[in-house]
Amino acid sequence: MGNAGVDVAGIGNAIVDVLAQADDAFVADQGLSKGTMNLIDAARADRLYGAMGPGREVSGGSAANTIAGVAHLGGTGAFIGKVRDDELGRIFRHDIRAAGVGFETAPAVEGAPTARCLILVTPDANRTLCTFLGACLELGPEDVDETLIAGAKVSYLEGYLWDPPRAKEAFLKTAKVAHEAGRQTALTLSDPFCVDRHRAEFRALVDGHIDVLFANEEEICSLYEVDSFDAALQAVQGRCRVAALTRSEKGAVIVGDGQVHVVDAEPVEQVVDTTGAGDLFAAGFLFGYTHGHSLYDCGRMGAIAAAEIISHFGARPEARLDRLIAEKVA
Amino acid sequence: MGNAGVDVAGIGNAIVDVLAQADDAFVADQGLSKGTMNLIDAARADRLYGAMGPGREVSGGSAANTIAGVAHLGGTGAFIGKVRDDELGRIFRHDIRAAGVGFETAPAVEGAPTARCLILVTPDANRTLCTFLGACLELGPEDVDETLIAGAKVSYLEGYLWDPPRAKEAFLKTAKVAHEAGRQTALTLSDPFCVDRHRAEFRALVDGHIDVLFANEEEICSLYEVDSFDAALQAVQGRCRVAALTRSEKGAVIVGDGQVHVVDAEPVEQVVDTTGAGDLFAAGFLFGYTHGHSLYDCGRMGAIAAAEIISHFGARPEARLDRLIAEKVA
Repeated sequence: MGNAGVDVAGIGNAIVDVLAQADDAFVADQGLSKGTMNLIDAARADRLYGAMGPGREVSGGSAANTIAGVAHLGGTGAFIGKVRDDELGRIFRHDIRAAGVGFETAPAVEGAPTARCLILVTPDANRTLCTFLGACLELGPEDVDETLIAGAKVSYLEGYLWDPPRAKEAFLKTAKVAHEAGRQTALTLSDPFCVDRHRAEFRALVDGHIDVLFANEEEICSLYEVDSFDAALQAVQGRCRVAALTRSEKGAVIVGDGQVHVVDAEPVEQVVDTTGAGDLFAAGFLFGYTHGHSLYDCGRMGAIAAAEIISHFGARPEARLDRLIAEKVA
Repeated sequence: MGNAGVDVAGIGNAIVDVLAQADDAFVADQGLSKGTMNLIDAARADRLYGAMGPGREVSGGSAANTIAGVAHLGGTGAFIGKVRDDELGRIFRHDIRAAGVGFETAPAVEGAPTARCLILVTPDANRTLCTFLGACLELGPEDVDETLIAGAKVSYLEGYLWDPPRAKEAFLKTAKVAHEAGRQTALTLSDPFCVDRHRAEFRALVDGHIDVLFANEEEICSLYEVDSFDAALQAVQGRCRVAALTRSEKGAVIVGDGQVHVVDAEPVEQVVDTTGAGDLFAAGFLFGYTHGHSLYDCGRMGAIAAAEIISHFGARPEARLDRLIAEKVA
């Protein structure tokens, strides 16, 4: 990265995904609600892993996926997150660095192993996530590299970080350092249950600390406790500089600069696995945002990146997104 | 599995694959010849892993892939192979059991870690394999479960086992136990360089210990040191009960019962990754062979299973092979 400062610094849970195919009955038998993210403890993680099908391990983590996407697009990025000094931790570190992302957070040398997210992919390409946070619980404000944050155009935070207790402090420190340096912050609400767990805090956060908010329809409705997308759209206006609201196949609505932009979803031939759709939307959007594009074009870049990621297994890009975007966005 | 005896017992290297996309220049820069399997030591594995792109980890191993394929087809299978009691070892054990394969080999509790195969997949869907054998070097005759082998219709051995020194003894013990129980043995030659390393021993093995031989064109030509497929075909006749010779898009030739059968390749819409093509051909063939099908139909089943595996990343089946075969083979 050098001293120049990166486009986007991400802070989030450092997780290795374990993806397996499953049918709806298996998801129900495990007491899981399809399409949700569930926090599970070590014992439940062992039981679920023992019962689920053959897996494939791929580095994940919501914000980590986003930063890998920014780098894939030709932007510069760095990530802050906690692994253990174990085999999955080495896999995570290798993969994010090999994706061109700076990653210097010291691994934990004791305690729980590297986090893993057991992902059940059903035949409808939906996914149910069960996250064992493991070493992520060790992330604290001492892990925030102030020089990195002060130099980053945008510091991007995942709502999931509100679950591990000390990560909040890292989160608030990051926002403070960024704003004192005249930089911007971005937040993704992560998932509707995450919003349920932390609604009051998230509202205060959006009002006081966040410039760019990412949320899907369910999340933004949950945040403002409203029943319709339009009501949520009215509620979020004026709360932060930009809100990028995604609606799956209905596209996205971008609110900012006193305007509302409607962006259609990018067509996808076959939806294989929706894991990472929101993460890659944020990647495309933030790449555009840190490179001076209009809010509408940022939304288009997000939609194109999201379409690529759902056309194959896994949450990190395979196709050359930079070329796709160069072809499709003027 | 119960006491009834399995259709196919496999013995081979227990390996977790680490697949990454790479271009031809990267393969050449690493001093590798595209499309080959290379044995590498721990230091070289670390260097190559550090240089290669983001990976996805999927359980592999040639014979292990074959047995997982047999189980996927509705057959019964068990696998013998050595992992270490580490994280990749637990991933390997989970994945093969979750595929419905019996796996009871005790893990090594000291020494090198679980084997990994760094696989570089180039844009032409070819793959270059670099295998760090690790714990596989600990496999010995004491790991051969005599009851399992005596009960299995076919015991299937991979040529790669000729590399770790004590595995040969396990290999020969398996053949002896199988034949004393009136069962059959099968061998895959694995790859042409493996044949180069062990040509004389492989010839003696085929003549003295093997009922069903699997080889691709390069391997069978290397075994008999001839320049044409037809010359190899003539050379192998009478050497073993059945020889199944594969030729990629040219299909396969099956020699046995005094007859020669020509089987066309199954059409594939898009070849994504040829990893596991030979392994799954053997799976389809052995499933048919242990269920009383004609040699021609065994070859067709092999071709269909191989076509499925090369249409996606990774060497273990994703589509329901049993249905594919039921549709296509009378």
